[in-house]
Amino acid sequence: MAGNTFGTIYKITTFGESHGKAIGGIIDGFPSNFAIDSAKLDLELLRRSTNQGIYSSSRKEVDNIEILSGVFEGKSLGTPIGFIIRNSNAIPKDYNSIKDIYRPSHGDYTYDAKYEHRDHRGGGRSSARETAARVVAGAISKQYLSSIGIEIQAWVNQIYNIKATNNDNASFDKIENSTLRCPDKEAESLMLNEIEKAKKEGDTLGGIIRCKISGLEAGVGEPVFDKLNAKLAHAIMSINAVKGIEIGSGFASTTMKGSQHNDEFVVNDGHISTATNNSGGIQAGISNGEDIVFNTAFKPIASIMQEQKTIDKYGNKKTITIKGRHDVCVVPRAVPIVEAMAAMVILDYILIQRAKK
Amino acid sequence: MAGNTFGTIYKITTFGESHGKAIGGIIDGFPSNFAIDSAKLDLELLRRSTNQGIYSSSRKEVDNIEILSGVFEGKSLGTPIGFIIRNSNAIPKDYNSIKDIYRPSHGDYTYDAKYEHRDHRGGGRSSARETAARVVAGAISKQYLSSIGIEIQAWVNQIYNIKATNNDNASFDKIENSTLRCPDKEAESLMLNEIEKAKKEGDTLGGIIRCKISGLEAGVGEPVFDKLNAKLAHAIMSINAVKGIEIGSGFASTTMKGSQHNDEFVVNDGHISTATNNSGGIQAGISNGEDIVFNTAFKPIASIMQEQKTIDKYGNKKTITIKGRHDVCVVPRAVPIVEAMAAMVILDYILIQRAKK
Amino acid sequence: MAGNTFGTIYKITTFGESHGKAIGGIIDGFPSNFAIDSAKLDLELLRRSTNQGIYSSSRKEVDNIEILSGVFEGKSLGTPIGFIIRNSNAIPKDYNSIKDIYRPSHGDYTYDAKYEHRDHRGGGRSSARETAARVVAGAISKQYLSSIGIEIQAWVNQIYNIKATNNDNASFDKIENSTLRCPDKEAESLMLNEIEKAKKEGDTLGGIIRCKISGLEAGVGEPVFDKLNAKLAHAIMSINAVKGIEIGSGFASTTMKGSQHNDEFVVNDGHISTATNNSGGIQAGISNGEDIVFNTAFKPIASIMQEQKTIDKYGNKKTITIKGRHDVCVVPRAVPIVEAMAAMVILDYILIQRAKK
Amino acid sequence: MAGNTFGTIYKITTFGESHGKAIGGIIDGFPSNFAIDSAKLDLELLRRSTNQGIYSSSRKEVDNIEILSGVFEGKSLGTPIGFIIRNSNAIPKDYNSIKDIYRPSHGDYTYDAKYEHRDHRGGGRSSARETAARVVAGAISKQYLSSIGIEIQAWVNQIYNIKATNNDNASFDKIENSTLRCPDKEAESLMLNEIEKAKKEGDTLGGIIRCKISGLEAGVGEPVFDKLNAKLAHAIMSINAVKGIEIGSGFASTTMKGSQHNDEFVVNDGHISTATNNSGGIQAGISNGEDIVFNTAFKPIASIMQEQKTIDKYGNKKTITIKGRHDVCVVPRAVPIVEAMAAMVILDYILIQRAKK
Repeated sequence: MAGNTFGTIYKITTFGESHGKAIGGIIDGFPSNFAIDSAKLDLELLRRSTNQGIYSSSRKEVDNIEILSGVFEGKSLGTPIGFIIRNSNAIPKDYNSIKDIYRPSHGDYTYDAKYEHRDHRGGGRSSARETAARVVAGAISKQYLSSIGIEIQAWVNQIYNIKATNNDNASFDKIENSTLRCPDKEAESLMLNEIEKAKKEGDTLGGIIRCKISGLEAGVGEPVFDKLNAKLAHAIMSINAVKGIEIGSGFASTTMKGSQHNDEFVVNDGHISTATNNSGGIQAGISNGEDIVFNTAFKPIASIMQEQKTIDKYGNKKTITIKGRHDVCVVPRAVPIVEAMAAMVILDYILIQRAKK
Repeated sequence: MAGNTFGTIYKITTFGESHGKAIGGIIDGFPSNFAIDSAKLDLELLRRSTNQGIYSSSRKEVDNIEILSGVFEGKSLGTPIGFIIRNSNAIPKDYNSIKDIYRPSHGDYTYDAKYEHRDHRGGGRSSARETAARVVAGAISKQYLSSIGIEIQAWVNQIYNIKATNNDNASFDKIENSTLRCPDKEAESLMLNEIEKAKKEGDTLGGIIRCKISGLEAGVGEPVFDKLNAKLAHAIMSINAVKGIEIGSGFASTTMKGSQHNDEFVVNDGHISTATNNSGGIQAGISNGEDIVFNTAFKPIASIMQEQKTIDKYGNKKTITIKGRHDVCVVPRAVPIVEAMAAMVILDYILIQRAKK
Repeated sequence: MAGNTFGTIYKITTFGESHGKAIGGIIDGFPSNFAIDSAKLDLELLRRSTNQGIYSSSRKEVDNIEILSGVFEGKSLGTPIGFIIRNSNAIPKDYNSIKDIYRPSHGDYTYDAKYEHRDHRGGGRSSARETAARVVAGAISKQYLSSIGIEIQAWVNQIYNIKATNNDNASFDKIENSTLRCPDKEAESLMLNEIEKAKKEGDTLGGIIRCKISGLEAGVGEPVFDKLNAKLAHAIMSINAVKGIEIGSGFASTTMKGSQHNDEFVVNDGHISTATNNSGGIQAGISNGEDIVFNTAFKPIASIMQEQKTIDKYGNKKTITIKGRHDVCVVPRAVPIVEAMAAMVILDYILIQRAKK
Repeated sequence: MAGNTFGTIYKITTFGESHGKAIGGIIDGFPSNFAIDSAKLDLELLRRSTNQGIYSSSRKEVDNIEILSGVFEGKSLGTPIGFIIRNSNAIPKDYNSIKDIYRPSHGDYTYDAKYEHRDHRGGGRSSARETAARVVAGAISKQYLSSIGIEIQAWVNQIYNIKATNNDNASFDKIENSTLRCPDKEAESLMLNEIEKAKKEGDTLGGIIRCKISGLEAGVGEPVFDKLNAKLAHAIMSINAVKGIEIGSGFASTTMKGSQHNDEFVVNDGHISTATNNSGGIQAGISNGEDIVFNTAFKPIASIMQEQKTIDKYGNKKTITIKGRHDVCVVPRAVPIVEAMAAMVILDYILIQRAKK
């Protein structure tokens, strides 16, 4: 209820302020007796980290995860997996000058309104730093899903006004070997130009991440309030800077007619599938065996390097120029976060479905 | 977990198949000692009902709600409010001919895959008939919210490819006195043409509903996983036929720069507000006192009146022409459903916030 | 959270005041495709009903259950099972004279303190009438459990100061054919004497129900906070008039030494069991394959037929003599309620365990 | 659901195996802006620790709690409070010899049956070591409760067959200055004799802890399934080695008549109270303003120092003599654990009640 837990059977609870001692979490409900490859956890954290070239913050986080419980002799115990990541490279004094100032479009004001006491350093709990804990839980989920034939892959499909062409079949390697996690090389080159330009202007850019979940069998999902698409929307919209999500045909469906939009059922060798996939792999809230595909809209992040007008907590007019180390474009780094949230939902729903058999 | 409950403190659990004996629900966690105006419940059900002219199903539902508990001498007891709505006008035999056939883009196949036993009549549990129970819970929520100064209003902003101009300040009366719940008369006229055309073609149309929540104070919402926008996305995406949701600037934010997108704080007479509202009333998951605005994309519904190719449950190829009574465009009727889901989220989050003070 | 829902995967939510229109509930999370024997539901309701001779209320409830959803062609759909039981024989005017008076040891005062608005008729929501809904959910659970080899049987082990001898192997028929659901005929005869005496005095009697769950495999239960015994304690203590619960050796364990109390493991034909069962079938919160046994203490109910001193809601001294139709000893009627709560816990935990495999 | 979380609004999730790297937890839903006295946390951990004389384990745990988040400048942020306690003094090799052996009445067998992979060292997750995390959450709860006038005090009321006289008004100092947390000096002396004797025999003893919650206003608690007594029973029964709980008159109520048991309402200076307190401060699941009192039965712990017959995981007969460092009588050390669980329930229910106003 307090917002720091996600999931029902497979559950993550996280803690941590951006410049506190550590962030971390507890993963509960993960199946027992599963071999966890910790190198893959490190890899996912690296994918999210800032050490990624021109578009990202110069804060060099070394996200060393320490697993404190729940894994014994390399395999999950079925008991909670507690883990922490120390905030080793925090520079809180960067933030002293804006202690009482509300940065535009950050959580400073709303956290004060809600809690009446706030850790102002780097946004405290509202910082995207907390997403590192999500990535850990997502990485563990992805390993399990992969072992039962389910793969989750996201990539950058748009930055600012540069849209990539269709990439739904791009490989993991192609995506990961690209600077911006965009498999369309031509579009990527234009995106890099825009990022370079925005960087010079002290500005920031948003974009769209597309995600594909493949290998999920039909019959997973719940009716009515917890439709699989509803839970995915919940999960994805909870990521910092996300302003929209669309599944399958999404907003474009509104200009289609039913006769165009309906996905015809076909049978090949006894296997039921659909000729088109406007449903995005989900019908009536339940998976139909096709790929689940969705798009996520990220706004440009609020920490621009330009002088801005604002107010302080006493209602006085102020101007600020945000210091600290910030991303120009957070979208490529958000790819593993989108995957992580999707993975947690899928694993949770698979476990829910097992409960019913 | 089984998907038929929504909310944490203010909670609705619903039941019912489209052509079973009744649908209904239990509202739990509603504050005690509040006078409930039952005429307003009937009004909301009427807004959702099919008796609304050219665009809707000819099934004449008379949705008589019977409240069985939780209200005594006109006021809420704080105990659960149980209610039922009988399915008086069901004609199950309409559905006999398609008992074993999977209608394209309906839940027939996925329900079979999940449950291995299905009420085929009118979609059973997957029918939008269940949204009547949501409207009841939403109507009660809206009464309470209204008593503390919060109003929730949705309207039709697009049907098919006809977009209305900005209507964010349209009055309830103007919206409700319009045939399609679209306050832009010119656009509405074009929309009606498209609906007429689609009806003749035996086709269906989707569209966009925009919703505005006004009067909510700053500080309501939760951090991290249960951001107010995340829960709204969950709630709205759980409505039948919804394919996307965007909050505030939404997908359009992706082509803005941070310097354009940031909402400058201003103070008037000691009251903090923002000069623009790209945030859509929510920052870092918590309300900032501005209007909360969001758009919902509805696909064209699947029950078209044209012959379609499909398969039956044994994998045989079939053609079907769906009979029964169906809407051409469900969007205007979905307006009170969108409002209902939004109202439930807002009331729930207000109660959560009270718990913390 | 509002207290009217029980369970995690297998979940019951109930509603209803004692003299309102109806009581009822929604069962969610029950496995699909299971044939439900509705005659057995009626039988369980009859076991709980008042039509049972000398010890019970003369209010003749005819508890006709109407199932409104979730069952189709005799089998569960996996969707919520909504049901109602009309309060056909309510006589609310019996209660007018005590509208503003707080009956000693009833919920009148605490409900007023909590909700500030109260249905005074027969205790409203606090009446044991709500347990009929529990019995319905329990009866459905028991059918499912029975189909996988698990039986739950409770009986009366003590009334007032009359204790029965050990009955742990008494048959269902022997218990049910006994007037007081006590298989020890000699003790039962003494109990009947005490009940007769208390009835003449206008007094009430409590007692102890013992319950045995057999056939549950080892490995069901959760660690730490949701130990199987903890959830059973929660379930059982939520029944009206219960003041204590003990599992296995219970309070008697406090006067044993560890060397006496430990249950030695033995193996017969490869089957692991324990030589004694002081653990009551649960070790470290998880079932060990032995019978689960527990005792429940019921206080004498508060509705005595003697004049009592009390106060009204304005703080004035009053004397009351409770009218209406009340039980002398509720314990025999509570047997199916204890079984119902136990059955819900066991089914829920079995489903939780399935989720993990 | 996986059993490692407790509470609804005020929530604790814990992790940790007895001989893993650390135990710890996340406290969520604690009110913001409350000054936390960390010395009092240390004190409570010390009360639970083993450094307490003759009756306890010689394992010298130094439970240094490290708070990682949720507290800033000495006051709670309203965000999750993450904390860890390193397992500094673990000696896992003590346990190697019993790696595959099922110790009688421990969780070894049931954990294997449930998880199929087990940390055998000191019981892993099933060890009472996890209760240190409960004590942390309880200590924070108690500070908050104390600030609003609510005190929770438990003490030892029985060890083995030695019962203390009534101690319901004993002071904290009197209890804490006693070796066994038993304020009845005479009884304590006899208890110490029994402990000494059991220690020589390599045996263990159980007992009863009584707990009193004072200062809670009327109106806190929920109806039906989540009665305040039901949740207390859940909380208390989840503590290792607990076999029974009784509230107010408890099991003794079964031999009382209704006329004796009913608590007469009286008014003094406009304040409503009851002349007796058989209800134990709770009526119909909701607090009535009187002290809440309950008794908890602890069995003698399973780790006796005598040779025992048992089996190994392959079904072979074995004899074991448990090594390691174990308590003779865990009851005095369990006092702060009982208080902690009670405090968490009461704080949670107070926050729930606030949500409804």
